[in-house]
Amino acid sequence: MTRSISIPRSISILGATGSVGEQTLDLVGRERDKWQVEALSANRSVQKLAAMAREFNVKLAVVGDESYLPDLREALSGSGIEAAGGPAALIEAASRPVDITVGAIVGCAGLGPVMAAIEQGGTIALANKEALVSAGDVMMAAVAEHGATLLPVDSEHNAIFQCLAGSKLSDVARITLTASGGPFRTWTQSQLDAAMPEQAVDHPNWDMGAKISVDSATMMNKGLEYIEAHYLFPVGLERLGIVVHPQSVIHSMVEFRDRSTLAQLGPSDMRVPIASCLAWPQRMDTPMEPLNLPSIGELSFFAPDETRFPATRLAREAIEAGGAAPATLNAANEVAVAAFLAGQIGFTRIAAMVEQTLTRYSAQTPGSLEDVLAADQAARMAAQQLLELT
Amino acid sequence: MTRSISIPRSISILGATGSVGEQTLDLVGRERDKWQVEALSANRSVQKLAAMAREFNVKLAVVGDESYLPDLREALSGSGIEAAGGPAALIEAASRPVDITVGAIVGCAGLGPVMAAIEQGGTIALANKEALVSAGDVMMAAVAEHGATLLPVDSEHNAIFQCLAGSKLSDVARITLTASGGPFRTWTQSQLDAAMPEQAVDHPNWDMGAKISVDSATMMNKGLEYIEAHYLFPVGLERLGIVVHPQSVIHSMVEFRDRSTLAQLGPSDMRVPIASCLAWPQRMDTPMEPLNLPSIGELSFFAPDETRFPATRLAREAIEAGGAAPATLNAANEVAVAAFLAGQIGFTRIAAMVEQTLTRYSAQTPGSLEDVLAADQAARMAAQQLLELT
Repeated sequence: MTRSISIPRSISILGATGSVGEQTLDLVGRERDKWQVEALSANRSVQKLAAMAREFNVKLAVVGDESYLPDLREALSGSGIEAAGGPAALIEAASRPVDITVGAIVGCAGLGPVMAAIEQGGTIALANKEALVSAGDVMMAAVAEHGATLLPVDSEHNAIFQCLAGSKLSDVARITLTASGGPFRTWTQSQLDAAMPEQAVDHPNWDMGAKISVDSATMMNKGLEYIEAHYLFPVGLERLGIVVHPQSVIHSMVEFRDRSTLAQLGPSDMRVPIASCLAWPQRMDTPMEPLNLPSIGELSFFAPDETRFPATRLAREAIEAGGAAPATLNAANEVAVAAFLAGQIGFTRIAAMVEQTLTRYSAQTPGSLEDVLAADQAARMAAQQLLELT
Repeated sequence: MTRSISIPRSISILGATGSVGEQTLDLVGRERDKWQVEALSANRSVQKLAAMAREFNVKLAVVGDESYLPDLREALSGSGIEAAGGPAALIEAASRPVDITVGAIVGCAGLGPVMAAIEQGGTIALANKEALVSAGDVMMAAVAEHGATLLPVDSEHNAIFQCLAGSKLSDVARITLTASGGPFRTWTQSQLDAAMPEQAVDHPNWDMGAKISVDSATMMNKGLEYIEAHYLFPVGLERLGIVVHPQSVIHSMVEFRDRSTLAQLGPSDMRVPIASCLAWPQRMDTPMEPLNLPSIGELSFFAPDETRFPATRLAREAIEAGGAAPATLNAANEVAVAAFLAGQIGFTRIAAMVEQTLTRYSAQTPGSLEDVLAADQAARMAAQQLLELT
């Protein structure tokens, strides 16, 4: 678990204009002399991408949507920065050897580039949930085959990674993900049945988009993280738990077989786990305030209630079912959340729809990325059909 | 930070009949086939020592008080176990090469044996507070010179050691010791002035002896631990803090410069940190229950109040003064606590007496163990004189 640290370190950021990408560049920009940015990508945000590419003097800028390549070329004209576009260009960018690749493309579009980086045997800071939720088996098999290093960016998984610090999983008694419980933590079942989109999109601790806010309210975000944790840290479901911790100060914890528990605490700011990945196995500065527990005063903990919030049970069942079930759960959830946000279904129907899709639909076990993408598409169609029956 | 693990592992326990010694043997006894006990020592508890020596089929049993050697010989007759007595025999026992030496002799009598083990360049699980409080400079210089490995047994320092997991101290932003606050945490100054010995000897979380219970009530135990932490993890006093945490679930924590904090949590049972030392860098089983945060419910945190509890300020000042000041603080505190327990002085006079001794008395900087012992003795006399003036 050692690696040599060259200065400057080279980095590529896939999904540079999203939240994780921006925050990564914020950190890199604070110690510019220590970094050489190789490649940045965006889907369509050409102007933002070009500005970033110029600011960081990168070698390559890529738009995922190839129809934006002319705009990108124009925006970069005279800069000497190479411009490219389309899925194959993304894969080529991800394949360039760098000290660390940040995989921050949202959704299934990120699977191919992440896989390409893994196949280089490099170090990948992974922020793409779909990579592990939908393609966990395929992805982790590739990590093992190519000797790649996956550093999880998600705050919970990053916390677990830090607590493990290279310990053997056989020494682990239990891994516990913490969950804020979301904005509806204390709501009754009938209140949940009547919950409106604008109420769900109001997360107590983190500032985030509508989809992920609804996932927080249903606790499906924790279900998805549970699946990710299962692939990253395969200790077995009986040793993988969830505890509700409304203050979100402890991001997750690991209990060892001697009953010593290590927990990672920190501010609710993605720059902390991102910095932990960028500097690993060392540390780098972030502009956050120090932890002040006396001013926080109190940390509280509750057992999850899977009657009001069935999402974590569904996630566990999807892992147990195996094969394409986790991909199906993720796809069905995306369809259901979109329907909820559009006012088509009620809040508690989200989990019900996911469960129905999982029950009624099963794909073959995916053996490749193509199988995963096919299962994802098929599950979306199955969920859509269910929706039309509602 | 790696070492090879031979099975069975050899172990010597100096101070086997005390609390830490007994709990070490409890753990060793649970996996007897993995351990070979080389030497056990006690001060005068001959029968208990002999029973342990027979049970664990040790090679050598030593009594610190040589006048008990004939009794030990008799108690071990026919066993084939070697018996020895007196300080030189203790040093010889501590010098025997083993995989791990547990230094659990209480008080200044433990200094010589711990130093002997350090001079072998071995791995020492250190439970003797005086080794670091009174002889910190001398001890840590010997550790560096002989390439020994010190594993702290005290729950707070063990927590810090685990959270650091080999990280560079230059990556540390802050080390925070937690303190229960003791039985008088919420008492007013006038209540403290009137506190009685029987009220002080009633610790909320740990079951321990009278001296250490009073140290918990005055928070001098945290002052002593602060001094130990300063020597073990020399990050500088401005990066070494204390937070009051009445539930004593978090045993201590380390914040890194990226503002990621690692904390160690566990039951208030010394077998957990002892096991962490015995198995380091791996883990071993203990018979403790798993951590159940939902059933604990709530962890709370307060800033220390150094007006009502000046002990931690005195400890910090003793470190700043350097030289023999920490040894003086420790010695004066022992005299003052004994006087409080004997009804000679009031509760708040304990810290006042320590402060007076520190102010009025200063020894030369100790360069050797002999200097430390001389400073300790001289400080006791100075404190005793102050007491007689009261």
